[in-house]
Amino acid sequence: MTVEKINGEKNKMTIHPSKIDISCGPLPGSRKVYLGNNNLKVPFREVVSSQCKHSSTEDPSLIKLYDTSGLYTDPEYDINIEKGLSEIRKEWVYQRNDTVETTDGQKTFKKNSLHKGLMFCCSSKPRKAKKNTNITQMHYAKKGIITPEMEFVAVRENCSPEFVLQEVASGQAIIPANINHLELEPMIIGRNFLVKINSNIGNSAISSSIAEEVDKMVWSIRWGADTVMDLSTGQHIHETREWIIRNSPVPIGTVPLYQALEKVDGKIEELTWEIYKDTLIEQAIQGVDYFTIHAGVLQKYIPAAKKRVTGIVSRGGAIMAKWMNIHNQESFLYNNFEEICDIMKQYDVSFSLGDGLRPGCIADANDTAQFAELETLGELTKTAWEHDIQTMIEGPGHVPLNKIKENMAVQLDTCHKAPFYTLGPLVTDIAPGYDHIVSAIGAAMIGWLGTAMLCYVTPKEHLGLPDKEDVKEGIIAHKIAAHAADIAKGHHGAQEWDDAMAKARFGFRWQDQFSLSLNPEKARAAREETLPETDDPSYCSMCGPAFCSMKLNQ
Amino acid sequence: MTVEKINGEKNKMTIHPSKIDISCGPLPGSRKVYLGNNNLKVPFREVVSSQCKHSSTEDPSLIKLYDTSGLYTDPEYDINIEKGLSEIRKEWVYQRNDTVETTDGQKTFKKNSLHKGLMFCCSSKPRKAKKNTNITQMHYAKKGIITPEMEFVAVRENCSPEFVLQEVASGQAIIPANINHLELEPMIIGRNFLVKINSNIGNSAISSSIAEEVDKMVWSIRWGADTVMDLSTGQHIHETREWIIRNSPVPIGTVPLYQALEKVDGKIEELTWEIYKDTLIEQAIQGVDYFTIHAGVLQKYIPAAKKRVTGIVSRGGAIMAKWMNIHNQESFLYNNFEEICDIMKQYDVSFSLGDGLRPGCIADANDTAQFAELETLGELTKTAWEHDIQTMIEGPGHVPLNKIKENMAVQLDTCHKAPFYTLGPLVTDIAPGYDHIVSAIGAAMIGWLGTAMLCYVTPKEHLGLPDKEDVKEGIIAHKIAAHAADIAKGHHGAQEWDDAMAKARFGFRWQDQFSLSLNPEKARAAREETLPETDDPSYCSMCGPAFCSMKLNQ
Repeated sequence: MTVEKINGEKNKMTIHPSKIDISCGPLPGSRKVYLGNNNLKVPFREVVSSQCKHSSTEDPSLIKLYDTSGLYTDPEYDINIEKGLSEIRKEWVYQRNDTVETTDGQKTFKKNSLHKGLMFCCSSKPRKAKKNTNITQMHYAKKGIITPEMEFVAVRENCSPEFVLQEVASGQAIIPANINHLELEPMIIGRNFLVKINSNIGNSAISSSIAEEVDKMVWSIRWGADTVMDLSTGQHIHETREWIIRNSPVPIGTVPLYQALEKVDGKIEELTWEIYKDTLIEQAIQGVDYFTIHAGVLQKYIPAAKKRVTGIVSRGGAIMAKWMNIHNQESFLYNNFEEICDIMKQYDVSFSLGDGLRPGCIADANDTAQFAELETLGELTKTAWEHDIQTMIEGPGHVPLNKIKENMAVQLDTCHKAPFYTLGPLVTDIAPGYDHIVSAIGAAMIGWLGTAMLCYVTPKEHLGLPDKEDVKEGIIAHKIAAHAADIAKGHHGAQEWDDAMAKARFGFRWQDQFSLSLNPEKARAAREETLPETDDPSYCSMCGPAFCSMKLNQ
Repeated sequence: MTVEKINGEKNKMTIHPSKIDISCGPLPGSRKVYLGNNNLKVPFREVVSSQCKHSSTEDPSLIKLYDTSGLYTDPEYDINIEKGLSEIRKEWVYQRNDTVETTDGQKTFKKNSLHKGLMFCCSSKPRKAKKNTNITQMHYAKKGIITPEMEFVAVRENCSPEFVLQEVASGQAIIPANINHLELEPMIIGRNFLVKINSNIGNSAISSSIAEEVDKMVWSIRWGADTVMDLSTGQHIHETREWIIRNSPVPIGTVPLYQALEKVDGKIEELTWEIYKDTLIEQAIQGVDYFTIHAGVLQKYIPAAKKRVTGIVSRGGAIMAKWMNIHNQESFLYNNFEEICDIMKQYDVSFSLGDGLRPGCIADANDTAQFAELETLGELTKTAWEHDIQTMIEGPGHVPLNKIKENMAVQLDTCHKAPFYTLGPLVTDIAPGYDHIVSAIGAAMIGWLGTAMLCYVTPKEHLGLPDKEDVKEGIIAHKIAAHAADIAKGHHGAQEWDDAMAKARFGFRWQDQFSLSLNPEKARAAREETLPETDDPSYCSMCGPAFCSMKLNQ
């Protein structure tokens, strides 16, 4: 990584985003292919058989896998993060002829005294809905119109566009796709589709730079993140987000409250609806695809939360609770929810209704505070749907295995089957340093029961800001959970991947086993680390030649 | 580690067992304490509060945890692996006055041309049951006699000795405790007790030495393994096992078939009942606490197994299937099961009835072959119980989440509620390099549903022989699964550990959080890696000072 010092304030070194080395190129043993027709170029990771060199007639494809990695794994595409990715949705959005250019938010940018040296320069001009026009995917779905976004999703998920439309229209699934995120490869979140995972990135006041965060985003999607949340709370929030969105093929989510708080230097008492509202517009114009909004934390719920072992552990929830205490007023998010809807629908930003009162430990799971908030989130979902705004619901947190089923059932019932997006859940509190595993256990379970997207947890959870290695480990643990859930749900085609691996294993096709892995490099390294000095592929160091059960079968 | 070359055959270096550095001393922030009275010194890991230095009146104990680590974590005890551990059971076994010294097996030792330079020299003389006397824990339990082993277990599990007796008598739990394993700290395996985990160690023809394996055993129990299986298939199997048992405070399990096969140089066709029988006696005399015996793989089940995607993946199952094919005879394990019982009960070796037909991939889960074998294992369980031999049943393998419940239900029903001991199960096949996580997901689920012991899987599974780091990662992943299961089952006291952690977290007592962790060093390192240069403990690098939700609560 080339390091160039831009500024040294607060003793931190900032690396200019253009100077980073991005991990590009396909995973070993896989290649980028595209399916679809007309305007659609839907990406897949095709795992190629190592045997096909022996026979020209053999089909080289072991399997085609869902691919989140964007153009970064397409060797034909020339990556330039200063220019951003191709705007593949531009034609789709423009041809709908339902939006206009806007200068909204310019005022806000100026107020923020942005760092010119760090600004991204090459984006299309921001747009918003034409007056009195609803432009959301949900709106089109309800009208029975299949958008290119829906078609794209249908190819990715191997289902019909009509099914996609039906699920989006009913609110059971969302396609987070801000009209200002033209670089997006559309994806869908809903319990009748593949289970998705989200990776959280973002700096804190303590560490990280724009370059590192862009790099983490690309790294996240390389390993399988379906969406990425930029949770930056440190310096240059606006600029960091801009670089991330322009280079992201996956939906970007944020918690606008963090930036609003940063604008008042962390002084919660100075937060106002106006500052928050400006922030929503600022981020919507940049192309953020979904906003986490903790509008369900009401004054009346705080006493119950205070009685808990770990109180309120959601950052957004804790901020709002403190604001309400200071001002002795109801949440400005709840009171202004209609106006929030009016803003978001102009850009087709989706709601991720935040679980501000999620439990922070096993002892607090499924308690009064949590389920009370969920009731309010259900009410807000109805309001959002009246505006045709796509909506998902965030969920816990820390929940023991035996309480996960109830959690899922209550969410589906209370929130009218809107997609559930859970953090973990973590099934025990005792394993800091290993919370990615703790979370994967709960995530697999709740994914099977119907959660549409799993928010990852990294090994650094509860301890510090994750680095790249943590991000990778967190993503892979949750890809495992998501796939285990897909298999358990009997999702069409999910088990084909496992079957391909099982056959490669039984056939001693080591190269194919690596290629089919979530992390081919790691699988290969693990074998080679302990491999005897021999070319005989018919066993490994675990059993040696005489004790290989698979060999004995032959 | 001091390296001393003993012999260089086959280009391998052997390290003399006495030359290894064993990891000793308590985990940071914990200390060894003993509970019990009279002859009982039952070990616990007491986690000590970092606050107690501030107040002399405060109770220093945050919590007392179940402790598998033996005398290695007692700084008062002088570890000498050449002498082995204290024989804490010697008085108990001798006072029962139901055993005599034996020279059985001496013939076998000689035939094996043991390596004198590697022999362990300091063990007590081997014993066996007096003629026509049944000496097993199950036998005493059925007679209503509480043994010191049962009392020890009761203190460990915080229940009454009567409850222990009742569970052992009914066959719902076992206390694997060979009368020749006098160094053992007794433990119990049953679904009404804490969920246990097993770690597999053992060399292969390809790698590892005795020293490494003893070291892996101590390392395994340090991180929480409740039992250890020595699955050696390489050189010096007898000597390796001797060093392991003499230094092990936890039950040691083996698969005697491996050594039997090694005695005929891996030539399956040359295996005989006599060689196998000699091996059983040889190992029973050494003090092996449980034998995995794949007596349920019958000729008639093989056609079904052959149709599978990955055939027979249990090593024992594959060996027996091949033997039956070659000789066109029924399994000598099944045919001689009564005689096996006659041998095992003389030493109180417990059965672990092997699942020779466990599925090796998702596609083969819960199939005809697997459930057919389970029927036979149920029948053999009844036979074993007629001899008062303690018995558990091994289980899969690879099973998707949605088929785990059926698996557990069928096992309980078919095998008359004998304890279930499962490998994983692995809930997907696609993640070589991460199979400890895949397994922990299935293990947590099946543990919750009633599995008594979880066999760990390491990151190297399917790829190679695990090293120490893999062993640790595998154990911790499965400790998480076991504890998550204990919480979900509502096992008395299980959640106290989580509650202690939650309170430490909410109180910003970082030191206590580390001390309460499964791996204190890792938790501390993760925080310190990203810690700002400040002494302020009131936040971490994840959120920084302004965004810490727990701080906002205060």
